[in-house]
Amino acid sequence: MQPLIVTDRVRISRLAERQVTDRQALYDILDAGLVAHVGLVRDGVPVVLPLGYARDGDELLLHGSTGGGLLRAAAAGAPLAVTVTLLDALVFARSLFDSSMNYRSVMVVGAARVLENEQQIAGLRRLSEHLMPGRWAEVRSPSPRELAATVVLAIPLAEASVKVRCGGPTTDPQDGESRETWAGIIPLAVQAGLPEPSPDTPCHVPTPASLDEVRARHHRP
Amino acid sequence: MQPLIVTDRVRISRLAERQVTDRQALYDILDAGLVAHVGLVRDGVPVVLPLGYARDGDELLLHGSTGGGLLRAAAAGAPLAVTVTLLDALVFARSLFDSSMNYRSVMVVGAARVLENEQQIAGLRRLSEHLMPGRWAEVRSPSPRELAATVVLAIPLAEASVKVRCGGPTTDPQDGESRETWAGIIPLAVQAGLPEPSPDTPCHVPTPASLDEVRARHHRP
Repeated sequence: MQPLIVTDRVRISRLAERQVTDRQALYDILDAGLVAHVGLVRDGVPVVLPLGYARDGDELLLHGSTGGGLLRAAAAGAPLAVTVTLLDALVFARSLFDSSMNYRSVMVVGAARVLENEQQIAGLRRLSEHLMPGRWAEVRSPSPRELAATVVLAIPLAEASVKVRCGGPTTDPQDGESRETWAGIIPLAVQAGLPEPSPDTPCHVPTPASLDEVRARHHRP
Repeated sequence: MQPLIVTDRVRISRLAERQVTDRQALYDILDAGLVAHVGLVRDGVPVVLPLGYARDGDELLLHGSTGGGLLRAAAAGAPLAVTVTLLDALVFARSLFDSSMNYRSVMVVGAARVLENEQQIAGLRRLSEHLMPGRWAEVRSPSPRELAATVVLAIPLAEASVKVRCGGPTTDPQDGESRETWAGIIPLAVQAGLPEPSPDTPCHVPTPASLDEVRARHHRP
């Protein structure tokens, strides 16, 4: 696999040792998240909005309504920054200065292309399989009207930064005598609760396999 | 309380009915999150990075190293977009088109001012109390060297958008006959796991009250 391209735009200046250029690390983070924060420039100022996404090989997919301003600008080729962050722990050090968070974060920069015809449907399927694995096969296919109302974008996974903090707290030498203060981490993770059927779902309808998929994915081992 | 200012920059074009202008809703979302995605424009292109934050009255606080490029630009007055998103559920509808996510999201736009002297310390304390409630009293105060290495920024909570999706799935009339398909939601939430002490924390050191605070905050009722 090609390592990621570290241009000035995605070079990490602060805590550079946390920069990772391994493409598999990029894949793993993108495959574990659900929501990306998509930034673009509008009238010279930044806008950052959350969007569901998926990874498809070496592209990152976004989708939304053709009526959305951000997606319209993105579809027209505006430069994007797409950031996905997984928060893994709060890190309790023996000083606030050394306290931190464990996280895995990706920022992909680039311009998007619009997926059309068969590519659009394949993109929607990939998004569906990422966000709700197995659901695609349980419900009907998108209708022509729905496809016309939806824009699917692909951004190449070429120029990207990956930044990771993991492990326990560090202790400043001046705090070396304070071992009587608890230090460590509290893990954090997105966890799924119990499914809540809609009022119009008859009691006898079983929960579908896709629900189990999603719940297994968001379950602390 | 003053309602939020809805300028063109923060007006929601798509699904405008999800826009909320109630200031208390803004407070509640910001008080429940840990990580903000901060966007700014660098050399004409967007950059989006995750940062811990806190709300202090009608300001949003950010902090980081004086060596960080994003914070340096923000401290110099660059226009910012700061977005906090809480993902509450996956929404399984009877079509993929109607499937969605429940979320609460805030985007605050504006320029930051740098907090100095007593304001800097008060800001760091507020950040600490938000991210690790109670920890400030358990560890020593920041040293002059640490304060010099840290920048604390405040952004007014004036121009902001709040967007919320809640409730169950909608069903398109054309899918009205498919009640035999399960529809509903799977709640999602950031949950805390068991604390993991660092190897140099002696076994007899009790877990501090601040840990219980954090764990209570990130615990499904």
